[in-house]
Amino acid sequence: MKLHGYFRSSASYRVRIALNLKGLSAEHLSHHLRKGEQRAPAYLAINPQGFVPTLQAGGSVNLTQSLAIIEWLDETHPLPPLLPKDPLRRAQVRAFAQVIACDTHPIQNLKVLARLRELGLSEEQVTGWAAWANREGLAVCEKLIALEAGPFCFGDAPTIADLCLVPQLANARRFGVDVAVFPRLLQAEAAAKALKAFADAAPERQADAE
Amino acid sequence: MKLHGYFRSSASYRVRIALNLKGLSAEHLSHHLRKGEQRAPAYLAINPQGFVPTLQAGGSVNLTQSLAIIEWLDETHPLPPLLPKDPLRRAQVRAFAQVIACDTHPIQNLKVLARLRELGLSEEQVTGWAAWANREGLAVCEKLIALEAGPFCFGDAPTIADLCLVPQLANARRFGVDVAVFPRLLQAEAAAKALKAFADAAPERQADAE
Repeated sequence: MKLHGYFRSSASYRVRIALNLKGLSAEHLSHHLRKGEQRAPAYLAINPQGFVPTLQAGGSVNLTQSLAIIEWLDETHPLPPLLPKDPLRRAQVRAFAQVIACDTHPIQNLKVLARLRELGLSEEQVTGWAAWANREGLAVCEKLIALEAGPFCFGDAPTIADLCLVPQLANARRFGVDVAVFPRLLQAEAAAKALKAFADAAPERQADAE
Repeated sequence: MKLHGYFRSSASYRVRIALNLKGLSAEHLSHHLRKGEQRAPAYLAINPQGFVPTLQAGGSVNLTQSLAIIEWLDETHPLPPLLPKDPLRRAQVRAFAQVIACDTHPIQNLKVLARLRELGLSEEQVTGWAAWANREGLAVCEKLIALEAGPFCFGDAPTIADLCLVPQLANARRFGVDVAVFPRLLQAEAAAKALKAFADAAPERQADAE
């Protein structure tokens, strides 16, 4: 398998964790987002959105969108499971993941921030926007699992929720968000980061890290 | 079941289609988004994000996030299926849905547009932003299914992809996007709209339509 990604891309980070948890290895191909390499014609032929990650799993289909890739990994390599078995619990885990993957991360991705700059916003306003998106999303996440015993987001093993949370917390810190106000999220992050699968997927551990 | 929604919310629209396709009925509770009713304390107790939709299915869990709700409906009411059986095809359908649900709709939702106004953007710039988000997302979607025979997004029956596409095209038109440049998407939309499940879920057919 080949994973097209970028060390600091939080969506790529989610998939790296999933591959590690499943014990799968992939060749990592880096596309430097700040240099615009994801918009090179050769990459657009693989992923017409020009986003990372893309997983090439050997067939003719290029898998895109991190949550779709992770669900595919979970369906084709069921152990360890990344979703609970109970449908209601699955829905809660997916909803948590989607608060991050739909309503938080895309609001603060490079493309949106670049558009804000084009519209004349200052660098301070752009960073403020990204911090706002992270604070709003993570505050919801904190409430969603406030009554969950943990230590992970949902129970005693990592799920797709944790795969989304850990990279998003890294983004939040990069934009200057005080994450100490999210104690339950930090508990889940600590449990996750104690696992080698999460530690090895961290941005600073990737070959393309700067 | 109770579905908390709003006639014009495209995420609510997705869930209405899913319920109709499954032959399920729900009591529809409207929260007027432009009046801020989704931020009323009583609703925040049900959905801490203050977004619609929320599905209350009888138990203690309030189901949130439209794609998580739809996957739950598909898992608990399997017929007709809203995802193909083959894992790779499922991944393609989910990726298409996520281009809309992660990278298009949240960029142009009311909350983000309100934030742009707070930062001093003109009404013209805000509408331009929303149109841009729709054009970018739908252009990707058009490419993702360009080689699919159809008539639906993926094959001869509706999937989660169509449930996301039809409401997003309605948004795009509302923001003045010329959708004629997406012929394959329009083909899928026509196939979907010919079904009663889609027609009955349309915003203008809802009791709270203005």
